[in-house]
Amino acid sequence: MIRVGIVGASGYTGAELVRLLSAHPQVKIAAATSESFAGQALNEVYPALMAAGEIKLARFTDTHWSSTDMEAVFLALPHGEAQAVAPALLGAGLKVIDLSGDFRFAETPVYEQWYHRPHTAKELAPLAVYGLPELFRDQIRNARLVANPGCFVTAAVLALWPLVHEGWVDPSALIVDAKTGVSGAGRTPKPETIFTKISENVVPYKTTGTHQHTPEIEMVLKHAGHDVRVTLTPQLVPARRGILAMAYGRLQAEIEEQELNQLYQRHFGSEPFVRLLTSGWPDLGCTQGTNLCVVRPAVDLRTRTAVVAASLDNLIKGASGQAIQNLNLMFGLDETLGLPGVGSAV
Amino acid sequence: MIRVGIVGASGYTGAELVRLLSAHPQVKIAAATSESFAGQALNEVYPALMAAGEIKLARFTDTHWSSTDMEAVFLALPHGEAQAVAPALLGAGLKVIDLSGDFRFAETPVYEQWYHRPHTAKELAPLAVYGLPELFRDQIRNARLVANPGCFVTAAVLALWPLVHEGWVDPSALIVDAKTGVSGAGRTPKPETIFTKISENVVPYKTTGTHQHTPEIEMVLKHAGHDVRVTLTPQLVPARRGILAMAYGRLQAEIEEQELNQLYQRHFGSEPFVRLLTSGWPDLGCTQGTNLCVVRPAVDLRTRTAVVAASLDNLIKGASGQAIQNLNLMFGLDETLGLPGVGSAV
Amino acid sequence: MIRVGIVGASGYTGAELVRLLSAHPQVKIAAATSESFAGQALNEVYPALMAAGEIKLARFTDTHWSSTDMEAVFLALPHGEAQAVAPALLGAGLKVIDLSGDFRFAETPVYEQWYHRPHTAKELAPLAVYGLPELFRDQIRNARLVANPGCFVTAAVLALWPLVHEGWVDPSALIVDAKTGVSGAGRTPKPETIFTKISENVVPYKTTGTHQHTPEIEMVLKHAGHDVRVTLTPQLVPARRGILAMAYGRLQAEIEEQELNQLYQRHFGSEPFVRLLTSGWPDLGCTQGTNLCVVRPAVDLRTRTAVVAASLDNLIKGASGQAIQNLNLMFGLDETLGLPGVGSAV
Amino acid sequence: MIRVGIVGASGYTGAELVRLLSAHPQVKIAAATSESFAGQALNEVYPALMAAGEIKLARFTDTHWSSTDMEAVFLALPHGEAQAVAPALLGAGLKVIDLSGDFRFAETPVYEQWYHRPHTAKELAPLAVYGLPELFRDQIRNARLVANPGCFVTAAVLALWPLVHEGWVDPSALIVDAKTGVSGAGRTPKPETIFTKISENVVPYKTTGTHQHTPEIEMVLKHAGHDVRVTLTPQLVPARRGILAMAYGRLQAEIEEQELNQLYQRHFGSEPFVRLLTSGWPDLGCTQGTNLCVVRPAVDLRTRTAVVAASLDNLIKGASGQAIQNLNLMFGLDETLGLPGVGSAV
Repeated sequence: MIRVGIVGASGYTGAELVRLLSAHPQVKIAAATSESFAGQALNEVYPALMAAGEIKLARFTDTHWSSTDMEAVFLALPHGEAQAVAPALLGAGLKVIDLSGDFRFAETPVYEQWYHRPHTAKELAPLAVYGLPELFRDQIRNARLVANPGCFVTAAVLALWPLVHEGWVDPSALIVDAKTGVSGAGRTPKPETIFTKISENVVPYKTTGTHQHTPEIEMVLKHAGHDVRVTLTPQLVPARRGILAMAYGRLQAEIEEQELNQLYQRHFGSEPFVRLLTSGWPDLGCTQGTNLCVVRPAVDLRTRTAVVAASLDNLIKGASGQAIQNLNLMFGLDETLGLPGVGSAV
Repeated sequence: MIRVGIVGASGYTGAELVRLLSAHPQVKIAAATSESFAGQALNEVYPALMAAGEIKLARFTDTHWSSTDMEAVFLALPHGEAQAVAPALLGAGLKVIDLSGDFRFAETPVYEQWYHRPHTAKELAPLAVYGLPELFRDQIRNARLVANPGCFVTAAVLALWPLVHEGWVDPSALIVDAKTGVSGAGRTPKPETIFTKISENVVPYKTTGTHQHTPEIEMVLKHAGHDVRVTLTPQLVPARRGILAMAYGRLQAEIEEQELNQLYQRHFGSEPFVRLLTSGWPDLGCTQGTNLCVVRPAVDLRTRTAVVAASLDNLIKGASGQAIQNLNLMFGLDETLGLPGVGSAV
Repeated sequence: MIRVGIVGASGYTGAELVRLLSAHPQVKIAAATSESFAGQALNEVYPALMAAGEIKLARFTDTHWSSTDMEAVFLALPHGEAQAVAPALLGAGLKVIDLSGDFRFAETPVYEQWYHRPHTAKELAPLAVYGLPELFRDQIRNARLVANPGCFVTAAVLALWPLVHEGWVDPSALIVDAKTGVSGAGRTPKPETIFTKISENVVPYKTTGTHQHTPEIEMVLKHAGHDVRVTLTPQLVPARRGILAMAYGRLQAEIEEQELNQLYQRHFGSEPFVRLLTSGWPDLGCTQGTNLCVVRPAVDLRTRTAVVAASLDNLIKGASGQAIQNLNLMFGLDETLGLPGVGSAV
Repeated sequence: MIRVGIVGASGYTGAELVRLLSAHPQVKIAAATSESFAGQALNEVYPALMAAGEIKLARFTDTHWSSTDMEAVFLALPHGEAQAVAPALLGAGLKVIDLSGDFRFAETPVYEQWYHRPHTAKELAPLAVYGLPELFRDQIRNARLVANPGCFVTAAVLALWPLVHEGWVDPSALIVDAKTGVSGAGRTPKPETIFTKISENVVPYKTTGTHQHTPEIEMVLKHAGHDVRVTLTPQLVPARRGILAMAYGRLQAEIEEQELNQLYQRHFGSEPFVRLLTSGWPDLGCTQGTNLCVVRPAVDLRTRTAVVAASLDNLIKGASGQAIQNLNLMFGLDETLGLPGVGSAV
């Protein structure tokens, strides 16, 4: 059994880690922290977790972080807080999977520009491996520090990577129109996430190059060999979970849809958590509750535009599920262990 | 491995059986039928099931029902259709778990009165065991035909049984005000279940003694030793799944809430899928995705009224999960096998 | 034109007053206050009101309250704050319609017990008229201070008044199972009203005699000539607006539904904003956007229980619309002026 | 008073016409037809309309269509049915406003290609005026037959017209990613519009050049002087009403957002039902219940892309409200008469 700690267990991604790990046959939760609910059990915060067993929440500083007690730690903290605790955890010989944006950028100035804060653990940046298994599986296996990808980024990159890699679309003006469930905004109540604001609504936010996932998408896609610029339009929709990203790119040549399908098949055909559709469209709901990303590449011949949809559950493949997928890789387990693939018909 | 057939696999409860069984370590689906989608694979009907493996749908009459191919059959059919196929399946030596109302009534005239149709397999009625494990566990273990309870009935009975059994409430006028998710109405589109009708709405239907679960609640509670009459008020709410039943009974004496808690603890304290709250209230959502029924007994001293809430997922503890719980009992497996207990914080 | 002030215009009931009054042919908004948004225009807070004209928000103390500038003031403040400002406004010769609970109780100790705070304007209590036009129309016409009823109270009283008045139900144990839209909880974000908590959920709160509308219902129904005790079960449902109250009372004799219909017809048949159904059931949505209360009285003969549904829009007939109805009465206008009666099919 | 007939009054756009006209001071409904509900009153179909007065539904052929009884007729029929009745109505001397797609195309072969049916009243095509007042106000004033625009078209054209007119964007590959409420799919229940399918979901349909509004957008924008090609991606969202269209166009030069704002101001600054935002973004909900279209033009400098959002209520500005706006113009009334401009804060 691999013993893990969860830092920030009372947030949505932390609670999702607990839920998913309760069904993982090879992982045991050895510690769970929460600054707001220290002293309480997690199922007092979330009654739905009442059957997950008693998980006591402690403050971070009241927890003993040692390689005799556990092997790995998930950081499910707000952006900016992971960099404060990662050095000590790594120093204690623990492997770290960070769900925040803190270690996603090899170039920390990019982080500082988009997250509007200084980076205080720059020395770790070169150590971090970007935790998207579909692209960086081998590096993840050997990583001590994994930077788990952003939810929009996972969707956008899986939608666009083959097209950019092949050079089939104009990389200077990609468009990602992304609809997201409200859990992405976290558990702290805000005027933007109150029910009366969200119900029967669609709410754009951080548009036209202001969302911090913009440079992350561009950084990852650059690995495909082209400088990329993307217009990201995030929009809150009345759903608790899920992302449906609709990606658009101007085709550089006349490409048939069949060629596109073959291209995606070559790139992702054997991926355990990517499903490719060649007809029909994924909806936001088809991946809820699973670690899947469902991708449909298509062509609009009239405008010579590639239209690619990607659907995923922002809390699973977009966060905690992918983090467990990374854990599985880092510890030589079957990559799919403990990760749900079957969604719900209703 | 126990091999099972699912008759009516393309309905909501059938698809939920498939989803749940895909995670059951001791059960294998040997056959699945659908009259509407025969010839197709189930994941063409429900893309969310795409990772459940290829499940081919065949017509009932095109399927070979034999004890060499399988041990048990789930009937996930509309009311009235189970009685047509059950005799042959039982005759072939298969155990049958029927999710419809067809075999729930020991007295078939009651069935005929409330379901407005003749009963064509009356001879099986004495054979059928009512599949509520919390009350009839031992009989279920030895049953060849289990009548899986109605969703409202499971909630209402678990909410009221201890009170009726003890004779603490006036049994002649119990009230169950029950809110249900829309999946209870099935997958056939109707004016009553279109999104534009349900969103931001609460819709009463089959009120004041017209819903067919009324006599079923009364029949089961009568096992507690008292003739019971119940006013059931079903109401559709904007949720895909879930039931929250609020049960009211006039207390016959001054009972303190603490006594009520002790009473429920005695009856259900060791049940694997009943959770008792002594403070706070279950909401409809706290059981979504699980086989739990969460019950909170309380007293309103000012009116001397017992107020008991029961929450369950209508497709799991209210249908397919409970059916699997029954299967586990019928085949001597751990009763909880393959049944989710941990819900989702979001 | 009647000129009015709105104190607390940036809350939901305040904004709804502005919206409704923008279509009122005889009322002009002369002042609007908000402590949180003083200095801003109301349509900066609520873009949907952008076409209501520029309404500048000022602090209460920066506003000139004088009978040369206006005739009446609506208080759309949190409970406890109206009593602080009402004396001065009345002293300035202005008529006051208070939407809070502050002046609803003739007996201020009842207020102090249920609202858990002292009452600081007790001398005004005898002056206040309870603003339910269906019961107290004549007194309202001559009132200087109107206490606008609570939303649950309006629904519960219109559902139960004829039954209690006639002595047909046991008044010692009435039950009101009430589902309410989330706007009733106000515009301040709370963990209870975040989208992720409410979507696909039903959440009981302040049950078994703890909600402050309990004594208010009992106080008003006592005017019907009987001491009444009610069990109120409020439940949040996934809707922005609307209340559906399901009221239950044990019948003292065998009453036929037809008699019940005639009784309600006698009491409310000529009311402009009460609609009586004799078949079918009102849903929560059928009154959204209108000042109607739709009532359906019914009998469950099997349990000898009266089951009465009442539907209203909590922000209109349950708050701001009823306040305008009261204003119309106080100033001798047509009672229906400016109040919407036609809802939306979708 | 102008007397009007409504053909197809029991559909959503027909019912919305009734609702809106009930508050119109200069229009009276003289006839209303429904083939499915002939003989019933409209408020039996839609209880929310109970206060709109008794509106008897008759078959089309049982109704007397004569200029002595009325002046104008709204056709709220499915596509393909308007062309069957329009000739007779026009022949009877009545003005006709058609809400279907039947008369929107000057070139009927385009209609036949996209609607997959022959056009049987081609002779009327040259007579029809396209009913978008912001572009064709003067022609509408004198029209006898107005083709009311499609809902997506109204949003897309108001979002893109100034950009195309000025030649600032590449017209060969415009993108409109459009989210729509479910009422756009009509009142007939379908698997696509059942609550269990739509709740917490976003569902793409008729993508990549297959939606019949594609050629309509292109035809209207061509009036701006450029051949246009558009990729339209309609998506159902969990809302009863509303459209939020996000339009993208590659800028041909470096344009600052301020220039864009000035451009839109020049085109639409004095329009009664277009509101322009220069900061913040319209959400889908901000126009619900109103005849407004709220437009926000913006620039993403990093990709040199114009991003323009347009929000409208698909049943009002996208259908019945715009039809009334056209009626007002055709009869010389104030264009805004009877049309709501103020939305709801909740």
